Amino acid sequence: MFIRNTWYVAAWSHEIPERAFLPRTIAQEPVLFYRQENGEVTALHDRCCHRGAPLSRGRREGDSVRCLYHGLRFAPDGACVEIPAQPRVPPQVRVRRFPVVERDRWVWIWMGEPARADPALIPATPWLNDPAWRYEPGYLHYPVEHLLIADNLLDFSHLPFVHPTTLGGAEAYAGVLPKVELLERGVRVTRWLLDQPPAPYVSQIRDWPGNVDRWNIYDFLLPGVLLMDSGSAPTGTGAPEGHRIDACEFRGCQAITPETAQSTHYFFCQPHNFGFEVPGLTQAIHENVVAAFFEDQALIKAQRDTLSLTPDFAPIPLAIDTALIHFRRLVARALEAEAVA
Amino acid sequence: MFIRNTWYVAAWSHEIPERAFLPRTIAQEPVLFYRQENGEVTALHDRCCHRGAPLSRGRREGDSVRCLYHGLRFAPDGACVEIPAQPRVPPQVRVRRFPVVERDRWVWIWMGEPARADPALIPATPWLNDPAWRYEPGYLHYPVEHLLIADNLLDFSHLPFVHPTTLGGAEAYAGVLPKVELLERGVRVTRWLLDQPPAPYVSQIRDWPGNVDRWNIYDFLLPGVLLMDSGSAPTGTGAPEGHRIDACEFRGCQAITPETAQSTHYFFCQPHNFGFEVPGLTQAIHENVVAAFFEDQALIKAQRDTLSLTPDFAPIPLAIDTALIHFRRLVARALEAEAVA
Amino acid sequence: MFIRNTWYVAAWSHEIPERAFLPRTIAQEPVLFYRQENGEVTALHDRCCHRGAPLSRGRREGDSVRCLYHGLRFAPDGACVEIPAQPRVPPQVRVRRFPVVERDRWVWIWMGEPARADPALIPATPWLNDPAWRYEPGYLHYPVEHLLIADNLLDFSHLPFVHPTTLGGAEAYAGVLPKVELLERGVRVTRWLLDQPPAPYVSQIRDWPGNVDRWNIYDFLLPGVLLMDSGSAPTGTGAPEGHRIDACEFRGCQAITPETAQSTHYFFCQPHNFGFEVPGLTQAIHENVVAAFFEDQALIKAQRDTLSLTPDFAPIPLAIDTALIHFRRLVARALEAEAVA
Repeated sequence: MFIRNTWYVAAWSHEIPERAFLPRTIAQEPVLFYRQENGEVTALHDRCCHRGAPLSRGRREGDSVRCLYHGLRFAPDGACVEIPAQPRVPPQVRVRRFPVVERDRWVWIWMGEPARADPALIPATPWLNDPAWRYEPGYLHYPVEHLLIADNLLDFSHLPFVHPTTLGGAEAYAGVLPKVELLERGVRVTRWLLDQPPAPYVSQIRDWPGNVDRWNIYDFLLPGVLLMDSGSAPTGTGAPEGHRIDACEFRGCQAITPETAQSTHYFFCQPHNFGFEVPGLTQAIHENVVAAFFEDQALIKAQRDTLSLTPDFAPIPLAIDTALIHFRRLVARALEAEAVA
Repeated sequence: MFIRNTWYVAAWSHEIPERAFLPRTIAQEPVLFYRQENGEVTALHDRCCHRGAPLSRGRREGDSVRCLYHGLRFAPDGACVEIPAQPRVPPQVRVRRFPVVERDRWVWIWMGEPARADPALIPATPWLNDPAWRYEPGYLHYPVEHLLIADNLLDFSHLPFVHPTTLGGAEAYAGVLPKVELLERGVRVTRWLLDQPPAPYVSQIRDWPGNVDRWNIYDFLLPGVLLMDSGSAPTGTGAPEGHRIDACEFRGCQAITPETAQSTHYFFCQPHNFGFEVPGLTQAIHENVVAAFFEDQALIKAQRDTLSLTPDFAPIPLAIDTALIHFRRLVARALEAEAVA
Repeated sequence: MFIRNTWYVAAWSHEIPERAFLPRTIAQEPVLFYRQENGEVTALHDRCCHRGAPLSRGRREGDSVRCLYHGLRFAPDGACVEIPAQPRVPPQVRVRRFPVVERDRWVWIWMGEPARADPALIPATPWLNDPAWRYEPGYLHYPVEHLLIADNLLDFSHLPFVHPTTLGGAEAYAGVLPKVELLERGVRVTRWLLDQPPAPYVSQIRDWPGNVDRWNIYDFLLPGVLLMDSGSAPTGTGAPEGHRIDACEFRGCQAITPETAQSTHYFFCQPHNFGFEVPGLTQAIHENVVAAFFEDQALIKAQRDTLSLTPDFAPIPLAIDTALIHFRRLVARALEAEAVA
């Protein structure tokens, strides 16, 4: 049902404080996140191997976790190290430990074969941890399957229709087909819109007198990570790429991680590298993005309801769906490969 | 699951005002109702053929509707007439248009093959639009499958037991088997109860000194339309039909339309042709009927809960079930015929 | 799904007052409990055999019950004795009557073949009706399948971990394997813990200066009845059975009865035979037990959620699971035997 041999964003670093538990379901598996005393993030199956009680209702004992149903104690590698009233602990008494990597304030988890969990496969997100960029960390819980959200992010022609007063702007934006490059593990989408009025949320930030050139250039990568170079600048009408002089630039990072078949974690932020002297700008940018994402969510929930009512629906592919179709194909192939393996 | 080649009541006329959308699910299909600028009611599939977003979250543009996900625009015949970033609109990009007929303040919809949507098949309901009859329009949403409600309406022997203080009255009413005539597309039920005290709600309207003759004569027609001649008059004890001198007469019109497999729209009214000089009488009659229908609803929801718990239930047919059994058989036959076709 | 040829606790006697109905679902069957005029408890299928309406929405007429949908009337043996508009009542028009036995303030019901309903199979619970013992009757509704609750009661090593501030006490309690005896229809569990601090709730009752000997000796019997001799006394360290001089003694009676596949009735009480002169003691003991049972319920609901998310879970049996495993095996055998029969 979900790709397993892949890195999912599981949490923002600050969601796993010292000495507290973060229980979170990832791809239908309950996972307990906590930090060892050296700060290292540990991810154990949040299900005691004895009778299935969640370890997150247990307690920390140093770096180990004691289940507070019948008192089994587990080391951070998942091995049980104590069973009340039983001197010997058989080796099969253990819970899964999931590979995790904490990098740039995101915690990534690998839900498949641990031997294949190569950290080099994690996409670079330097803007999350670079003082030249500022942002607020965002999280939304979505009661919707993750692929409907991926669809949304793979086709920005929805911007003027879903977000007319926030991210959107002129409907001309939807009239331009983006360039779509097929990558091995995703797609690269490039769209320039030249010499148009700025989007509403840019007008609130900058007071340019005329039209702007606007760009959205992003990779959307398996299993659902969007990394975007976007911005606006006073128009130079230098087709096709416009120019970036006196620009507002962003490096949006977004990740959709399935929780269950019908719900999704959505991690996001919108780092910017300008206007640090403007009080509250970072927060204002964040709030604008959040407002827009609630617009997406309302639409996607309505779409989900319609599709639930009529599960026979077969969508009709249009020219704007190139990126979406390629990504859905990559997902299908990855699932097939894991089903065979 | 539902009969498709049939006319369902979909709405009261006033539920579809000028320029507003009425989204309503009929027989498991999401439908968008709106009026064209000439007033004509249009019913489109409320599911964009592109990615399944509901068109009812879109906007009117003249007589057409634009989907506010990716901007496709549909004419009132269901054809897509504009796709952003795509000059040619392939002919298969269209949504279903459902045949509709607005008549006597009811809007009827045909969920099956449009070519077979003959308006002559719509039962006559002249009392809905005749100044000689007055009523309030009623609507209830029922979280119950429609056939349990049909069962209820097909056997009025429940009146004294479910509605002792509203529509019901003497239990003698249940002691008389009605005459049941089998029609091609329904049943005709005729019941006279002579020389009995009036039902509670009639006593509130009329101050007759003695007993009354009471009648309920109705057709119950596929897919779930009840049209009834009912009333009471001071008893003449002229068996078997009583008389109607100085009578209170009604022409109840009711329609049950499946929303989903587990929910139903219930449209109803109780037109009367007397007492126009009594202030508030029409409203009082309506409120009495609504109170009684809530009694039915409480009972039928309890019945639904019991049947959900024990889905193996096989009812035992009794003499009072003649109309019910015939109607259930007509439904089964219609469904079989459509399954074969 | 449920054992049928067995006695289930269905109610406390006081839950079935004179002339009122108690509708309650037992093992997926809706049951109507009421008392005949001679006080005898009657249990009928709470589903009219005609169209499935619940009889508990009907009315008493002497010892019989009239369905208030279409007016059928049933005698306390389940036979229909009146059908409106139908002079003859065919013999198949009847509802199931379930064997019931009221004993010691518990009402037991037999959901299987009536001919096998031997009252001698009901476990003895004299403490429920003996002035030498006092208690408050307890009931909890559990939105969890009954076997997870049985598991809990079959392994008291959870006491110090789930109930550290109520029933629990020193974790040493979990370090002692109880003696488990396999009975034909259950298990007998015997555990003595000698020379340890008293459990918190015992400290609140008695002011002993030193350690205590503590025992829990119980039978857990099909389909889910726990009868327990438990208590504490100042330690005599007379291994292995301790002594009971100056003891606090209890005779806990508990019964878990499946409501549906995912919900359970839990009847319980904690009779004590000491401290009658202490005002409020009985109530205090009861409240302590209730507080502890809510601790169990929170844990078991979390366990249920985890198992629902990952239904593939296979528990790992440990030394502490001897009683649990035997009882689960008895349940499986009983279900198999009934499936074959």
